Amino acid sequence: MLESSQQKGQSLAQQVASKMEEFIKEQRYKVGDKLPNEFELATELNVGRGTIREAIKLLAARNVVIIQRGKGTFVSENPGLTEDPLGLSFITDKKRLSHDLMDVRVMIEPEIAKLAAEHATPAEVEEMEAICLAIEKLIHENKNHEEKDIQLHSAIAKASKNVVVPSLIPIIQTAISLFINLTNRSLKEETIETHRQIVEAIKIKDGEAAKKAMQRHLGYNKDELNI
Amino acid sequence: MLESSQQKGQSLAQQVASKMEEFIKEQRYKVGDKLPNEFELATELNVGRGTIREAIKLLAARNVVIIQRGKGTFVSENPGLTEDPLGLSFITDKKRLSHDLMDVRVMIEPEIAKLAAEHATPAEVEEMEAICLAIEKLIHENKNHEEKDIQLHSAIAKASKNVVVPSLIPIIQTAISLFINLTNRSLKEETIETHRQIVEAIKIKDGEAAKKAMQRHLGYNKDELNI
Repeated sequence: MLESSQQKGQSLAQQVASKMEEFIKEQRYKVGDKLPNEFELATELNVGRGTIREAIKLLAARNVVIIQRGKGTFVSENPGLTEDPLGLSFITDKKRLSHDLMDVRVMIEPEIAKLAAEHATPAEVEEMEAICLAIEKLIHENKNHEEKDIQLHSAIAKASKNVVVPSLIPIIQTAISLFINLTNRSLKEETIETHRQIVEAIKIKDGEAAKKAMQRHLGYNKDELNI
Repeated sequence: MLESSQQKGQSLAQQVASKMEEFIKEQRYKVGDKLPNEFELATELNVGRGTIREAIKLLAARNVVIIQRGKGTFVSENPGLTEDPLGLSFITDKKRLSHDLMDVRVMIEPEIAKLAAEHATPAEVEEMEAICLAIEKLIHENKNHEEKDIQLHSAIAKASKNVVVPSLIPIIQTAISLFINLTNRSLKEETIETHRQIVEAIKIKDGEAAKKAMQRHLGYNKDELNI
């Protein structure tokens, strides 16, 4: 069963990990599913339980599976998507990194807002409106709204129905907020206003207006970040 | 030394891996550097050699380090950047995935070509010209030019001086070529022509022309892929 990958010079645990990854890709195990126990996997793959344990650790290191102590091993929600998948935390010039991440957002997010205007369901629009209100409440209470902000942009990305961008946006946005101190933001009114404009344009399915509102929104952010 | 991360419920090997990752982020070990041997690391971090071995395997699974048998362990070229960092291979609808990846390229690459026109060094332009010629040769010999194609787009991304995009472009482009059979491409003349236009515009530092040539280039590709 495992001969084919042996020539790559992989350890037995790596080969077993690749095999288990294939099972997940073939949807034999789906997102959220619990994997069979070590004994069953060892029997099926004809290797020792120690090798299974090691393979599972390798898969967990790449967030393909999640080990829940005492409960078992489960297929992760976003298999293969690690916390910092682009290795951004290894880039040393953080100011430059934030600037360039923001540039990438400006390239992607207006187009994504346009796609969201074309494809969002009424339920998705309702969710965006609810997040907008929650952000406005946090802003008025002088509380941090970073997390809700990421939620809003992720909801827009999801509504675009592009299957790649919903993975990308939270990575980029989280990285920016990790590396830059955003606590002293003075852009409260602009944030509230442009968020509303984006969601309103998506609601009335006006793609160009959604695109332009997102451009304004990110433009304000970029000016404010001074990057 | 390792107490602080203990509360996260991480195994000792995971804690040691995090610590070693910090060393790399602090540039104590730089890209390409050889790590100290197991015995030295075990002494320094005050853990057993088995734990060091396990930690190194975890780091290798996320491409932070590369284990070269008989030579030692080295800091990887793009630490933390895994082969499929967005977990794209786990998306089951490959036709949809290719379409959406292409959409993301259309959002990013024209702007990147524009930035390349503004920031490319003469040496970088020379490299692009050489890759163009190599692609043309392969096309005329009816050979696969996929790899050289990725090289050209990566060179343009690098010349943009954006620190994020050079990680992103090859991932997206490789994913597209993995999932779609590109062997029957009829776009030979258009590819040669638009590649030349992009590089020429970058050479004369005409950002708008570079952007438009990249849009045309990706437009042809998208039509051809029929996605």
